[in-house]
Amino acid sequence: MLTLEERIKALRAGACVLASASDSTRKQALECIASALEAHRAEIENANKLDIEKAEKEGISDSLLHRLKFSGDKIDSAVKGLRELSQLPDPIGKVREMRELDPGFVLKKVAFPIGVIAMIFEARPEALVQIAGLALRSGNAVVLKGGKEAEESNRTLVRIIDEATSSLIGDKWILGIESHADVNTMLGLDEDIDLVIPRGSNKFVSYVMEHTKIPVIGHSDGICSVYIDSSADIDMAVRIAVDSKVQYPAACNAAETILVHSEIAPRFLPLLGKTFSELGVKMHGDAETLKYIPSALKATEDDYHTEYLSLECAVKVVSSIEEAIEHIASHGSHHTDAIVTASEEAKELFFRTVDSADVFCNCSTRFADGFRFGLGAEVGISTSKIHARGPVGLDGLMTTKWLLSGHGETVSMYSGPDGRQFHHKELM
Amino acid sequence: MLTLEERIKALRAGACVLASASDSTRKQALECIASALEAHRAEIENANKLDIEKAEKEGISDSLLHRLKFSGDKIDSAVKGLRELSQLPDPIGKVREMRELDPGFVLKKVAFPIGVIAMIFEARPEALVQIAGLALRSGNAVVLKGGKEAEESNRTLVRIIDEATSSLIGDKWILGIESHADVNTMLGLDEDIDLVIPRGSNKFVSYVMEHTKIPVIGHSDGICSVYIDSSADIDMAVRIAVDSKVQYPAACNAAETILVHSEIAPRFLPLLGKTFSELGVKMHGDAETLKYIPSALKATEDDYHTEYLSLECAVKVVSSIEEAIEHIASHGSHHTDAIVTASEEAKELFFRTVDSADVFCNCSTRFADGFRFGLGAEVGISTSKIHARGPVGLDGLMTTKWLLSGHGETVSMYSGPDGRQFHHKELM
Repeated sequence: MLTLEERIKALRAGACVLASASDSTRKQALECIASALEAHRAEIENANKLDIEKAEKEGISDSLLHRLKFSGDKIDSAVKGLRELSQLPDPIGKVREMRELDPGFVLKKVAFPIGVIAMIFEARPEALVQIAGLALRSGNAVVLKGGKEAEESNRTLVRIIDEATSSLIGDKWILGIESHADVNTMLGLDEDIDLVIPRGSNKFVSYVMEHTKIPVIGHSDGICSVYIDSSADIDMAVRIAVDSKVQYPAACNAAETILVHSEIAPRFLPLLGKTFSELGVKMHGDAETLKYIPSALKATEDDYHTEYLSLECAVKVVSSIEEAIEHIASHGSHHTDAIVTASEEAKELFFRTVDSADVFCNCSTRFADGFRFGLGAEVGISTSKIHARGPVGLDGLMTTKWLLSGHGETVSMYSGPDGRQFHHKELM
Repeated sequence: MLTLEERIKALRAGACVLASASDSTRKQALECIASALEAHRAEIENANKLDIEKAEKEGISDSLLHRLKFSGDKIDSAVKGLRELSQLPDPIGKVREMRELDPGFVLKKVAFPIGVIAMIFEARPEALVQIAGLALRSGNAVVLKGGKEAEESNRTLVRIIDEATSSLIGDKWILGIESHADVNTMLGLDEDIDLVIPRGSNKFVSYVMEHTKIPVIGHSDGICSVYIDSSADIDMAVRIAVDSKVQYPAACNAAETILVHSEIAPRFLPLLGKTFSELGVKMHGDAETLKYIPSALKATEDDYHTEYLSLECAVKVVSSIEEAIEHIASHGSHHTDAIVTASEEAKELFFRTVDSADVFCNCSTRFADGFRFGLGAEVGISTSKIHARGPVGLDGLMTTKWLLSGHGETVSMYSGPDGRQFHHKELM
């Protein structure tokens, strides 16, 4: 019986097999998983039933129960997702740069799988299927740790996926782990795992970031703002503020703060106050805001640093776009910030100066999402500045390698006063 | 008097000024530095003289003394380098992706400075000038720590650069630090510094990687191999092996191991042995190698894990290209590995399967270098798989942001059975 450490180390060999597997082999493996899920539907539903019964006994909330459930339509749609994934262009080998150093001496920078990736995610069995699919499509071996409530479902799914693909791509590319202790063991294996992508609560993502030397893609906070500029169209401004706050308040890309230029405040704030009140949004405003929205609570400094994730928000009147930008820099989490404005100049200043993963003009912060961005599949959202920032698609699971192809060239030939000169001709 | 921590924290504001400074302002600032270095030539040479005198008293080696020296031609060439840097295309705002989500609703992914970068480098004053220039060109604030032997020169240079640019871009974008204690303080400030780029000894780079939560770009080892395939042209193979090992043995991209297919060994190894012996290269070979190069020492397993950085190398006969690839995977450092072959098939297998930052065919490993690659300027070489891999140019100092520009779009408009559909049209 191998230890967890040995099993994780073994993934390196699996990653090599997967990285050099052809596009059609990886597509075929996705199809094998899709078919296996269909063929083992009853087995999956039974395992999921055990998870559901246990969760019900433990009295988890209806919304968590709903996410935990995996049967019927949800299995169909997971299967459909896998088949769609195989339609995405192969990320391996995609040429990102190409340059001739000298006639016939050609350098290419091509995408290549990162290697062994660990993903930690919520108790939603379809997430496991999706993540395994993303890893396979991108040629990466994967360690999967799903929410503990889905333990039986996840264990069954990993086994089915493993069995369905082992004849094609070996049986060492996917490994499910279960306990918190396993997670800690894994976080210590920085030689064996190349990247960790934790999803779930901010607290958990921060925990991961603090307990590993492995690079982490994730977002630890989503304090997003909508700034209503003096020149904004009032109706558009209300519509965007409402969508950003209310359309799905639990999302990381939902707005937490509405900043309002003082010149437009007398016309905008009463309307916002009325609309938000009708929608049940609790407001925390500064003194200026309270003039126009008397029902708002008095905001504390803390309110402007709070990720409510519910029908609650902070409102502040600012005297200039510069003050709004400065507020976002000092209070936001560099996730997603939007301006509503009719001024091209204000938009340009906001785009140039706001240092966030997503900077939007005249649209809702809720568009910050891999599917809406057209990335094909979403791996996660990153507020890191390194490697990948904002919604991350399959590209985020890739590194690159430089391929240089010559005919016997040596550096000596290019050295000294009589040496050849590089011509560095861009080929794309 | 501010503490080091306060001065580092202050760089965030400087980074914002720099990131939103126009291309022409940053170019002008580079010109100001170039002119100031010319105007303060005597002052710089005097400071450098103090360093040289101290170093001579302490008896440092001639080669280190040569690197430490900064006067005359070297100042001219540093000034020239700054002017060349300002000719490179502006990295800020470079569009990397562009996609229309729906008519008139356009998403762009653009390059943006990372923010505050720390660079640690050897005792070579022109490195300080070059790194300050790279940071300025790319819009990043920078903490500079040069080798302690160049302390006086570096202090003088930082002051001159700071004074030359403060009226244009403020005086908080560049900070020199000096002691080892300062480095440790800096490595602890993971909220304030976004990236550390250490250059210098492998031991030091590893030390940095182990002592900070800040992302690090660097390479901790350079165990590079040249594999001579059965179909290789013998003369080309010798030429490439010699250049890879001998042209500059102290470089990280110099070869440490020569792998030889058993079919070509009887013809290739005697020639290699003779040539290497004439050039003073000490060889450590396996039993097969010793048959053809009797003067070689018997290699131990350690020899194949050693970065000699000198006129010394390991040689091994392998029975197949697969064995060579497996040797590289298990003994190399994923830096630069080359194959010499006349077979297109062997080349493709090597390119697809070897997981190194640089994978070369029929040319010297010594080409792994930012200038030779045509990157314009070299920030460093990375063996990390995250963010940047291989020779890193100005692009490695950039992150991205997503800019989305709409006309009042909300996610509600795109939700539900009657919602609009995204059309996701690629615009580049």
